Amino acid sequence: MKNTKIKPNLFVLDVDGVLSSGQFLYDTNGKQYKIFGPHDNDGLKLISSYIKIRFISADIRGFEISKKRVEDMGFEISLISEDEREGFFENLNSDNVVFMGDGYADSLVFDKVFYSIAPKNAISYALEKADFITNSNAAEGAVFEACMHLLEEFFNE
Amino acid sequence: MKNTKIKPNLFVLDVDGVLSSGQFLYDTNGKQYKIFGPHDNDGLKLISSYIKIRFISADIRGFEISKKRVEDMGFEISLISEDEREGFFENLNSDNVVFMGDGYADSLVFDKVFYSIAPKNAISYALEKADFITNSNAAEGAVFEACMHLLEEFFNE
Amino acid sequence: MKNTKIKPNLFVLDVDGVLSSGQFLYDTNGKQYKIFGPHDNDGLKLISSYIKIRFISADIRGFEISKKRVEDMGFEISLISEDEREGFFENLNSDNVVFMGDGYADSLVFDKVFYSIAPKNAISYALEKADFITNSNAAEGAVFEACMHLLEEFFNE
Amino acid sequence: MKNTKIKPNLFVLDVDGVLSSGQFLYDTNGKQYKIFGPHDNDGLKLISSYIKIRFISADIRGFEISKKRVEDMGFEISLISEDEREGFFENLNSDNVVFMGDGYADSLVFDKVFYSIAPKNAISYALEKADFITNSNAAEGAVFEACMHLLEEFFNE
Repeated sequence: MKNTKIKPNLFVLDVDGVLSSGQFLYDTNGKQYKIFGPHDNDGLKLISSYIKIRFISADIRGFEISKKRVEDMGFEISLISEDEREGFFENLNSDNVVFMGDGYADSLVFDKVFYSIAPKNAISYALEKADFITNSNAAEGAVFEACMHLLEEFFNE
Repeated sequence: MKNTKIKPNLFVLDVDGVLSSGQFLYDTNGKQYKIFGPHDNDGLKLISSYIKIRFISADIRGFEISKKRVEDMGFEISLISEDEREGFFENLNSDNVVFMGDGYADSLVFDKVFYSIAPKNAISYALEKADFITNSNAAEGAVFEACMHLLEEFFNE
Repeated sequence: MKNTKIKPNLFVLDVDGVLSSGQFLYDTNGKQYKIFGPHDNDGLKLISSYIKIRFISADIRGFEISKKRVEDMGFEISLISEDEREGFFENLNSDNVVFMGDGYADSLVFDKVFYSIAPKNAISYALEKADFITNSNAAEGAVFEACMHLLEEFFNE
Repeated sequence: MKNTKIKPNLFVLDVDGVLSSGQFLYDTNGKQYKIFGPHDNDGLKLISSYIKIRFISADIRGFEISKKRVEDMGFEISLISEDEREGFFENLNSDNVVFMGDGYADSLVFDKVFYSIAPKNAISYALEKADFITNSNAAEGAVFEACMHLLEEFFNE
């Protein structure tokens, strides 16, 4: 059982397959649209007074789409390749980072953060290592649920 | 058991996650498309001679999309932020309002209306408080099912 | 049990929720895209030497989209409103019509055709009355499955 | 049980319903978008040093979309009609071909390749004949899972 006395101070979220459904639309010119879902913005608003929120993405090709969505919600996003991911977490000025991710590269970092969260439809490697798995799929409320879980687990709300 | 003698006279529906699937498509310029589904327009037509229908939405960014869809079906829509929602229901000239919603803010109003409905894939807070939960997900027939339920429950059809 | 000696000679299919998933994308200008799925074109090709195929749709607003998809597959489509639907089937020069539909208005015609088929995710009214229900949802192989079922049931293939 | 001494040297993948979800968006001008998903590019990268990867597609109308996606990932794609498919596999300079497909025409070739894979939501004919069925649907990680399975089954990784 987690020591609820220690409060995390940074919530890092991957975009694709966490905030987005992970699916994207291609036409003959390339990646054009990503699919996002309900509730997540509500959850992030509720938790944003308790913990700093940052988004990361390794998707170069669709980064401008992710950036637009994240910035529309009022948060920051950084392009962090999968190779840079481990170094990114090591260099954060924080020991108490929560990370929500869904992919294989994400799962490799789960051991190195304070608390890890995976959406229900994450890759099996991420599900096996995550401290908390949401009941909702990505873009169907998974980020909202993660926010409510953090509020209850660490902030007694 | 509801007193079927009292007939509701206004059916208020949220748009995102109720009439739409809750999912939306982003490109580099922002929110471009919402996903709607079958049957719902049929249900609203069937019930519209029994009860007045109004839509509300708190989604500023996608409001013009929601407005186009709702007006194409022949109904009215109002932009009501989550903070204004409680006041909106208090100021309605009606004691017998049915409200169908799916989100956290919606669930906070469920206690204050005559009858509340949530689609199957609503947030857990809404599912816990709703008087009726559809068997269908939003944009897969949930509004149609809500309409048929109201006809049977309150109008003996 | 159906008399397999009698062979149907016309297969009428609804478009929305049968060939399409039933979901459609709206932007600020209206209905822009419909979602179609795999396998169905394969099934229609396989069956087209045994039975004539026709599509109908009551969706005025999205008719040109449906028309484009149906004609790309090499078939004909007619715009038949829900009110005209019963008359349409009465006036067909055929006693042995198979009809595949998913909606409330479709279900009202199921009794009047030789054989009725509903995709798994059809409205409950259609599921209750259909002679055959596919294991697949619309736009996930339901039309393909209906075609293979007809081949086996009526044409001993 | 497969002899793990024999290593396949070519992995051929169908696009629609394998790499894509199989669903596509139509507007009044025709097929405009295909839906792709997360993880698959990660899996293909992981396996590409062990086995050559090639994509095939029978979808003329959407070929340029598939081509753009496959080439963005750094692989090659060929337009191979369903009639040409058997000949295509016979003419490959390889006895040890892995083929991942989801459709009826794909299933007819499964017997003729070294090892066949179908995504969970493939057509029943493909599921019955496949050597391996993924736990994930197409565009929800099926190709990633196939890659990890091949690494484990044939390359002891």
